[in-house]
Amino acid sequence: MEQIKNKKDNSSLSANHYPAFIDSFKNRKMAHHFFLKARSVDISTGRWWIVLINEVDAQRLGIMPGDELKLEWDSKTTEVACDITKELIEPGEIGLFADILKQYHIKEGDLVKLSFAKRAPSLQAIYKKLFKKSLTYQEIKSIVNDIVSYRLNDIEIAFFIAPAFDEKNFSEKELYYLTKAIAETGEILDFGQKIVAVKHSAGGLPGNRITPIIVPIVASFGICIPKTSSRSITSAAGTADALETIMKVEFTTKEIYDLVKKNNSCMVWGGALKLAPADDRFIQITHSLGIEPYSKMVVSVMAKQVAMGVTHLIIDLPVEKTAKISDMETAKKIKEIFLRLSRRFHIKSEVVISKSNGPIGRGIGPALEMRDALRVLQQKDNRPFDLEAKSVKLAGKLLELTGKVKKNQGEKAALDSLISGMAFKKMIQIVEAQGGNTLLDSESLSLGKYIYEVRATNSGMIKSINSRNLVELCRVLGAPELKGSGIYLNKLVKENYKKGDVLFTLYSESDQRLSLALEVLEHLSIYSNS
Amino acid sequence: MEQIKNKKDNSSLSANHYPAFIDSFKNRKMAHHFFLKARSVDISTGRWWIVLINEVDAQRLGIMPGDELKLEWDSKTTEVACDITKELIEPGEIGLFADILKQYHIKEGDLVKLSFAKRAPSLQAIYKKLFKKSLTYQEIKSIVNDIVSYRLNDIEIAFFIAPAFDEKNFSEKELYYLTKAIAETGEILDFGQKIVAVKHSAGGLPGNRITPIIVPIVASFGICIPKTSSRSITSAAGTADALETIMKVEFTTKEIYDLVKKNNSCMVWGGALKLAPADDRFIQITHSLGIEPYSKMVVSVMAKQVAMGVTHLIIDLPVEKTAKISDMETAKKIKEIFLRLSRRFHIKSEVVISKSNGPIGRGIGPALEMRDALRVLQQKDNRPFDLEAKSVKLAGKLLELTGKVKKNQGEKAALDSLISGMAFKKMIQIVEAQGGNTLLDSESLSLGKYIYEVRATNSGMIKSINSRNLVELCRVLGAPELKGSGIYLNKLVKENYKKGDVLFTLYSESDQRLSLALEVLEHLSIYSNS
Repeated sequence: MEQIKNKKDNSSLSANHYPAFIDSFKNRKMAHHFFLKARSVDISTGRWWIVLINEVDAQRLGIMPGDELKLEWDSKTTEVACDITKELIEPGEIGLFADILKQYHIKEGDLVKLSFAKRAPSLQAIYKKLFKKSLTYQEIKSIVNDIVSYRLNDIEIAFFIAPAFDEKNFSEKELYYLTKAIAETGEILDFGQKIVAVKHSAGGLPGNRITPIIVPIVASFGICIPKTSSRSITSAAGTADALETIMKVEFTTKEIYDLVKKNNSCMVWGGALKLAPADDRFIQITHSLGIEPYSKMVVSVMAKQVAMGVTHLIIDLPVEKTAKISDMETAKKIKEIFLRLSRRFHIKSEVVISKSNGPIGRGIGPALEMRDALRVLQQKDNRPFDLEAKSVKLAGKLLELTGKVKKNQGEKAALDSLISGMAFKKMIQIVEAQGGNTLLDSESLSLGKYIYEVRATNSGMIKSINSRNLVELCRVLGAPELKGSGIYLNKLVKENYKKGDVLFTLYSESDQRLSLALEVLEHLSIYSNS
Repeated sequence: MEQIKNKKDNSSLSANHYPAFIDSFKNRKMAHHFFLKARSVDISTGRWWIVLINEVDAQRLGIMPGDELKLEWDSKTTEVACDITKELIEPGEIGLFADILKQYHIKEGDLVKLSFAKRAPSLQAIYKKLFKKSLTYQEIKSIVNDIVSYRLNDIEIAFFIAPAFDEKNFSEKELYYLTKAIAETGEILDFGQKIVAVKHSAGGLPGNRITPIIVPIVASFGICIPKTSSRSITSAAGTADALETIMKVEFTTKEIYDLVKKNNSCMVWGGALKLAPADDRFIQITHSLGIEPYSKMVVSVMAKQVAMGVTHLIIDLPVEKTAKISDMETAKKIKEIFLRLSRRFHIKSEVVISKSNGPIGRGIGPALEMRDALRVLQQKDNRPFDLEAKSVKLAGKLLELTGKVKKNQGEKAALDSLISGMAFKKMIQIVEAQGGNTLLDSESLSLGKYIYEVRATNSGMIKSINSRNLVELCRVLGAPELKGSGIYLNKLVKENYKKGDVLFTLYSESDQRLSLALEVLEHLSIYSNS
């Protein structure tokens, strides 16, 4: 055995370059691996990475609870953490939690390979960024690849995101690289159209359900507008949650191509596609922290647009003091990053900052928001005019941006589409294609049957609405999971009320949740008076 | 019901102050809570925070897999993440993993309270630091408190550590605050002595087992030197792992006071005490990342010294190009921070930077390192002279620092203690007090019985030793868990060898691990030749 070598050890970054220590914790290069038989364990976890082995094997293999290991099967690989059990799993077996089995299509009894995880190669790039060095496209791509293949864990990804809180740490070029890498790591759609238009709202404002109005308006002009939306994570309802009250929103890529061929439009849940999958993990981590750098937020939105092959884009940035974007200064910075990134991707973009005082529309919660949107599309007398005005404005801008309608004519054209019923007709076509009931009416949506009207005990004027508290209360009522749950705002900002007037109405699908909400109401205020 | 309030909502940081978004994800203020019956689940996890509930309860309570919840019992509180099961746990029960039950002394059948977790109040301080603002002592203390009470999760802590990679982000004052907070959050010892001396090695250099030599030397002069050491996480052996081959190292605080009263000294595992508990979580997170800011490393060491009531301190910073501290420049920066922090805590400190070329001593692994130390204490002919020289030098400096020995006389005094047998006599007293065998001899330690000698295939001189690879190989052999495992370096740096000479010897307690190590050896080099 030749032990005297001059072989260069490239296994880890030289500590010389960085003012910090590098230890060999994850550099254990066990050439060895162990085959174990997969067994499903009846536990469902929000985390991807946990496997279970018997303590006999753990001892034999030198595995400690929490050790990071590499799991391989077929030709796939992921990193997992190892828990240890005395009885749940026999020696020679490996317990895989429901999520892992499902996510990775491993079957009971399959042989999988377990070995000690090597440090992810892209950690070196993360170190560089922690020390404020610029990253190349290759480095950023390697990070994104390792995120998607779960070779980087949450803590490591957190260390990659952290420097982005200092705007100076990511150059425009690096944000472009990151966006490109995130888009390219997932599925890329191609609708074979010269114009692919989309409207995107930055979110964070309750209500504001403009997608189900804008999409049919724009589509009624023959423009290709394939819209993917998200389900709610932190709000009372995501667009997909609202749409789901009237039609299916989960489709495969092939089905989406068919929908768009039929109606030059669709409104689907983006999560069913594999668009920009790295972004899902970024979102998970920033949610845990509770704040996100805005560069990250812009990158996240743009990556999805790039993956969708979007050519014309309207970005809606709602500014409201208790919402996600709370001030104009922030909104302007975000707008700037959006426009710069759009230019690099040759996407024609316009960013519309709209300041509001409280929610847009009156319904908060999946079905209540869908009802508002349908009232606008059906031009009902009780439609929320603020929601209509905003939708018409943004749809008009998108029409102008695509060149389909002349400058300054967009808003009128959009309104005409609503008034003439063209938009609603398009909506019915979309609903039909997506398996919904075409005898659709705003007043036939199913709302929670446990209802409570909160009345004023004096007179006054609504000064402002606390979006954050409103969302919390909706979630207590069961939104967005229970789709009929939510709050209807009988009084909006600047509206007067007198003693006995209904201020807002709680809807819930369960008795208990309604009483819980009433209890919570003792501690939260929705309105403040003047 | 009075719904119109002007009550100020202090629940979350105003987004106005920071260029980032704050969402309401964890602000759900469910006033409600649920009582569940504790049941132990036969799973051991490296993470503290997982509980298991039945899917019926999950649905009823609106809990999703991975949701963060607050667990309360007696008057204690911790945050947990929730996994969901169909069968493992009955409705009305809550499954608590072995670690949680053990750590929190919850008994089977106890009623515990579960509610949605509120965002940790100290997150606001973490946000501030992400935006490069200075933190007050109160803010830093709140972070450390929330770390210790598990109200901050790993991701949130990672975001607190990340800014420390930029030296400018934490002022000397903030490092002082952090050290103080970490120390004060745990147990504080008081030996009732004017002088409490300690030597601390920054670690990261294989071998270097100087503690078991220095402590008896210094104690033989009647100086109070209560030494806590760690077990290895990333290395082939921690001092506690090595000491454990000859005596007990786990003691309660009270027992430690007794030991010190008896011998004015002890050598124990620090983990059994609750010194600076926040630091354990910092360590866990930086290990996952693989690097740590040096300010964090200094804070970590100093917090433990402050908690121990240390008054006189020698810090050993070994510099070696493949070790933790790889260059003089880094060592000097670290030294500076150590000295500044020491001054603030009124601890008399001296930092000794010692450059070496490869490990100190010849044995790597718990028993092999202990054997080296005993050979020095027993003044055997085959003792490692580099280890002796370094120990004598540092012990001498500590003797001088305490004023017990005159300036420039320390080294000679320390050597005298070794030669006269006073140090070994003290060692025997310590071993006796800590329940070890007093008929102690360096050659009677139990080493792994599977042995392999790696021989040279040509002639030459050892140019350098790769510490990182050496440690990896020792871990493959089973160190530090299997205490007789490790490597003995028959040839050190600058020593000549000829064909057939034994270069190093592998020891393992298992056949499989030895063959595995031989396999790994094909990919790793320990030496490089000249």
